[in-house]
Amino acid sequence: MGPLSSLAAGETRLDWDSLFAGRIARMKASEIRELLKLLDRPEVISFAGGIPDPALFPDAAFRDGLQAALSGADRGQALQYSLSEGYRPLREWIVGRMASLGIVCDVDNIMITSGSQQALDYLGKLLLSPGDTALTGWPTYLGALQAFNAYEANYDRLVPGDNRSASAFRDAAEAKGGRAKFIYVSADFANPSGETLDLSERQRILALADALDCAVIEDAAYQSLRYEGEEIAPLLALDIARCGSIEKARTIYCGSFSKTLAPGLRVGWVCAPKAVIGRLVLMKQASDLHSATLNQMAVDHVARTVFDAQISRIVATYGARRDAMLKALSAHMPQGVHWTRPAGGMFIWLTLPEAIDGAELLAQSLQREQVAFVPGRAFYPDAGRGNAIRLSFSCADEGPIAEGIARLGRSIRRAMDAATPAAWKTSEPCARSL
Amino acid sequence: MGPLSSLAAGETRLDWDSLFAGRIARMKASEIRELLKLLDRPEVISFAGGIPDPALFPDAAFRDGLQAALSGADRGQALQYSLSEGYRPLREWIVGRMASLGIVCDVDNIMITSGSQQALDYLGKLLLSPGDTALTGWPTYLGALQAFNAYEANYDRLVPGDNRSASAFRDAAEAKGGRAKFIYVSADFANPSGETLDLSERQRILALADALDCAVIEDAAYQSLRYEGEEIAPLLALDIARCGSIEKARTIYCGSFSKTLAPGLRVGWVCAPKAVIGRLVLMKQASDLHSATLNQMAVDHVARTVFDAQISRIVATYGARRDAMLKALSAHMPQGVHWTRPAGGMFIWLTLPEAIDGAELLAQSLQREQVAFVPGRAFYPDAGRGNAIRLSFSCADEGPIAEGIARLGRSIRRAMDAATPAAWKTSEPCARSL
Repeated sequence: MGPLSSLAAGETRLDWDSLFAGRIARMKASEIRELLKLLDRPEVISFAGGIPDPALFPDAAFRDGLQAALSGADRGQALQYSLSEGYRPLREWIVGRMASLGIVCDVDNIMITSGSQQALDYLGKLLLSPGDTALTGWPTYLGALQAFNAYEANYDRLVPGDNRSASAFRDAAEAKGGRAKFIYVSADFANPSGETLDLSERQRILALADALDCAVIEDAAYQSLRYEGEEIAPLLALDIARCGSIEKARTIYCGSFSKTLAPGLRVGWVCAPKAVIGRLVLMKQASDLHSATLNQMAVDHVARTVFDAQISRIVATYGARRDAMLKALSAHMPQGVHWTRPAGGMFIWLTLPEAIDGAELLAQSLQREQVAFVPGRAFYPDAGRGNAIRLSFSCADEGPIAEGIARLGRSIRRAMDAATPAAWKTSEPCARSL
Repeated sequence: MGPLSSLAAGETRLDWDSLFAGRIARMKASEIRELLKLLDRPEVISFAGGIPDPALFPDAAFRDGLQAALSGADRGQALQYSLSEGYRPLREWIVGRMASLGIVCDVDNIMITSGSQQALDYLGKLLLSPGDTALTGWPTYLGALQAFNAYEANYDRLVPGDNRSASAFRDAAEAKGGRAKFIYVSADFANPSGETLDLSERQRILALADALDCAVIEDAAYQSLRYEGEEIAPLLALDIARCGSIEKARTIYCGSFSKTLAPGLRVGWVCAPKAVIGRLVLMKQASDLHSATLNQMAVDHVARTVFDAQISRIVATYGARRDAMLKALSAHMPQGVHWTRPAGGMFIWLTLPEAIDGAELLAQSLQREQVAFVPGRAFYPDAGRGNAIRLSFSCADEGPIAEGIARLGRSIRRAMDAATPAAWKTSEPCARSL
């Protein structure tokens, strides 16, 4: 380098905002996170966190799995760099799991990710050029919106049962300067709505994807947590059934061990045609080389030894908590409040009278009733509707659920009493989400 | 959704290539990876893998750390979701480590990443809009190029000691439709060159960054592996020394436990002004929520109990291997071959006579001499120079190093004999890289 005039000490301070890439403007801090910092107080009954109950983690199996990984002949492997595709025995176990869901694939259709959040990030990176559109219902999973926002996604809203044509979606995407690249869908017990798509809705989504010639991203994070009714085939299974092979499918399935075994190890997977997996493997190599080897080995051990027993255990516990929350809602909610009745998962979505804002209700509820939840607006890509909240039943026992919902009922009544009579107007339940 | 005409089974097959985002065109499979699949044969002496020797991993300390994390009062925490910033005790340990390097910072200047590869990916995502330029020496770390390629980087080459002005770099970046956003530099024992920047070169890089008003990304993956000479202050330490505070610095430091403790747990960190860390935390939340909690707890335990002893152990072992390789090169290389003399790290960069291509030499060497290395071209963002190879001394004992270099010497002589006399022309050593 040539001679350069050095600036005097203290004079320089980089204007970072001017240096950041254009996409950074779309990454914003979540208001929820700030609110949720208040929830650590022991007197608060919280229905806010969308997280599994740590009391249900199979710790002993993880201890055994980690011990085995670090003691056996593979102990060098456990701490060493490994393949971007993931630990082969775990991928083989997942192939069997997928087969049990009606998805016939082989090990080369599976890549391990650091949780299914990473799969969503990678799929945004893979598919979205600036200006492109992602189709999704909303309210929808906040983390999906955060992942896709980083690639400057536009959004268009899918509402089950409405009559909008494929060409209307296509035209809207083109008007925004791009193309509809995928439909994002959480078909079972979605976060935050708790709702499940029936078979005909799944078929319609695949048909719409055909008409748009786009991909489908199936977020299956909660799929194993069913408390009643029959399993409905995943979109990828339906897609394979009609086109004959996963290699011809347009659906990309994102699985996770976070809700079944434990989230802290960050192990999930993508199941997709090899044309997609091959690109994702390159992406993973460039972005973090591979998910932690040791964790994949531990999850492999735990999955092989306790997966089915673990599912039975958490389904029994969370199912009872869901029942307790639904019963308490019936007992304590005033007229004009509506809620979903999830067949599984962790969430109930509650729609308030129109004039009641979920964020204001949270502030009041925390202060006067020591009960917490997540205001609904965060789950919309636009300003959204403020008169809804998400309740999670995964982390509270049945006693605190009954007490917390009673507190919430009082808080909502108080908000209705404080508002003008217009606030009493019964709101339509939010349109069902994907 | 309205009525959609479903396509008949078997008729559809998505043209994935047409659906992928523009950035995907820049993500290519590495030819090296294909070649390296041949290296598993036990008769091959390999200097190819740039990986630590698993025999040196502190397995017992990891076993203790994992056991402690899963047995104590924090065992729920170890398997649960956690903060995107990372595990606070580990960040506090890193603050102490940074202080020992002359970098005064606090815990909010540290974010944990899934290896320093993830830091490079995030920094590309943070700083590069399509068309922007990254300045780097080359040959340079292949993984950095892969990370930045995903954000459609242009590259401009920094050569220590040349006379190119800041305005020339600025003009070149603008001519490519963007701006010079950062200088990427591995200052100590760089991969692949093995070279180290002296103090004046570090100061010149900071001055160039001042003149361009851009950031500096300091990749410190190998910094702890010094086998001779005095430590040279990291660029971030020099930057803080002149501007008075890390908050005013323009340097972003990427650290890693992969080369010191073990790579398989994927734990690294970024140390930077809070304005940068705040954005990276949002990015991490959107891309994988957080690095595995358990692994961060285990690394914290291992770092606190054996870090210094581990550094002493690997420095003694790798230092002896470096000496053995340098000695063998002196003994076995023909006239016209040049190589670097690294003061640390894992790599020696070897420049061949101009007509000898590293990739062809590898094919010949594997076939006839059972010795392996990485051809040099992969470490260039453009077609690069073919007449160079990277040798790693980290994973071979001194005996096999002597034998392997003797084989390599025979292989190079054979290539020179087979070529026209022009091939004998002595090549200039490749210009030193950053």
